[in-house]
Amino acid sequence: MRTPRPTQAFKTWRRQQDAHQNSIGFVPTMGALHAGHRSLIQRARQMCETVVVSIFVNPLQFGPTEDFRRYPRLPAQDLALCREEEVDVVFIPPLNRLYPPDFQTAVSVNRLSKRWEGEHRPTHFDGVTTIVAKLLNIVRPTRTFFGQKDYQQFLVIQQMVKDLEWDTKLTLCPTIRDPDGLALSSRNQYLGASDRQHARLLYQALSAGKQAIAKGQHHTQLICQAMQDVLHGHQHLTIDYLACCDAQTLEPLSKVQGKVVLLGAVRLGTLRLIDNMVIQIKTRKFL
Amino acid sequence: MRTPRPTQAFKTWRRQQDAHQNSIGFVPTMGALHAGHRSLIQRARQMCETVVVSIFVNPLQFGPTEDFRRYPRLPAQDLALCREEEVDVVFIPPLNRLYPPDFQTAVSVNRLSKRWEGEHRPTHFDGVTTIVAKLLNIVRPTRTFFGQKDYQQFLVIQQMVKDLEWDTKLTLCPTIRDPDGLALSSRNQYLGASDRQHARLLYQALSAGKQAIAKGQHHTQLICQAMQDVLHGHQHLTIDYLACCDAQTLEPLSKVQGKVVLLGAVRLGTLRLIDNMVIQIKTRKFL
Repeated sequence: MRTPRPTQAFKTWRRQQDAHQNSIGFVPTMGALHAGHRSLIQRARQMCETVVVSIFVNPLQFGPTEDFRRYPRLPAQDLALCREEEVDVVFIPPLNRLYPPDFQTAVSVNRLSKRWEGEHRPTHFDGVTTIVAKLLNIVRPTRTFFGQKDYQQFLVIQQMVKDLEWDTKLTLCPTIRDPDGLALSSRNQYLGASDRQHARLLYQALSAGKQAIAKGQHHTQLICQAMQDVLHGHQHLTIDYLACCDAQTLEPLSKVQGKVVLLGAVRLGTLRLIDNMVIQIKTRKFL
Repeated sequence: MRTPRPTQAFKTWRRQQDAHQNSIGFVPTMGALHAGHRSLIQRARQMCETVVVSIFVNPLQFGPTEDFRRYPRLPAQDLALCREEEVDVVFIPPLNRLYPPDFQTAVSVNRLSKRWEGEHRPTHFDGVTTIVAKLLNIVRPTRTFFGQKDYQQFLVIQQMVKDLEWDTKLTLCPTIRDPDGLALSSRNQYLGASDRQHARLLYQALSAGKQAIAKGQHHTQLICQAMQDVLHGHQHLTIDYLACCDAQTLEPLSKVQGKVVLLGAVRLGTLRLIDNMVIQIKTRKFL
């Protein structure tokens, strides 16, 4: 495993790969790797000859009041995980190399990025699409792997890749959860013991929505009510949104049909949790 | 010479090139090819093993009141020129293939694109950077060739390529001019005989600025005055701007130093002409 820090070293390595025509699987991360990242790396390892993991805490995707400075940075632990998973190259670019002082370019996805997370974190997705554009150009991966926990992020990146025509296949991998359902996230380590008890309520709310659909509920208003009921009375927890949307456009639906996604975001003190469940609605056959 | 129209055919061809590891020279155009484009193609032909020309009148870079619909389209003539110059592939994507109805991504260069042309054509450069981003991803050129006539456009694209890290080298080629100095442009064919007489005044104005500098004038205010004097009294001609700027940042200067660019844009009825001259200031030695 090589860990070329300067971007130039990485680019030189990348050009050498062109001669071998190896397929390159790419897992972009902000570090503080957990079992969710591990599952992405394993999927990349299965599907591609060469696996690249990038570790870069991207300031552009943090809002001015968010946790860029205190976001967990655990390079030794991250490298150990990458070594265990036989990652070929870990790319750890320095901040001032990716964003020199005259940096002034932005990539924006205009409709998909405005809803839900975009309403609560207005500059977030522009930061994500800009860094992913850079990383796709540097890494030039055959396939790129993302976790379903950040479902809207995946759709936004998918739209960008389609619109600007990068030649990489995107793979969405299942959310990895703690035994009580809490979706893994590097930020979960901010949770104190009592908040940890409340955090799992988001999963329970989404599960209640899923169960309502399984029981035949088609009205999204009532599905959303089922989700809200789970969180009712928990004063430590503020709902940013609980929604039932089309799984491709993220437009809210009045009745579920086709493939839908239940989206949720809640705040627990300064911590914000997001989660989602994608559900294929079974078409009823009237005999 | 092949002319694969559907984008997929082009992409298939492009992937085949990876195996050969040929260098690819790319000349992006909007068609209506003239001797300026020809010089770009010849430069690409000299420097690269494979030459790709794209022809695409990009709606995103036209303002709502501009000439997208009547922009000259001369495919047969363009293909003949490409054939003469031994272009390997002419890429002519259909409009709805590059911009399907759900297209929603934009690339913006935030500072460089705001001045000069950006002030007069506020959406223009976002349209340019978005299409060039797409074309760079589709063509994946080793080198990309641009004409100096669109000098600010070149700087904006150069900034985008640097910021988002596409692996292509950009080459700026000299402006090709008519014998009276008028910079070649596909839009020159809109000029009537009397306007044609006025059109060359822009070149003459820039030449007057250049001459003032050659004579030792350092104050940009007086250099700009020399340029304005040439256009004074010509009522058919409206000045959008005449400026003397740093050749890299396009910031206006009070005194010339280093490498400067004289920029000019004028309107002749509905037609807009731009031109520029880049000048390396000789440092005076005081003995």
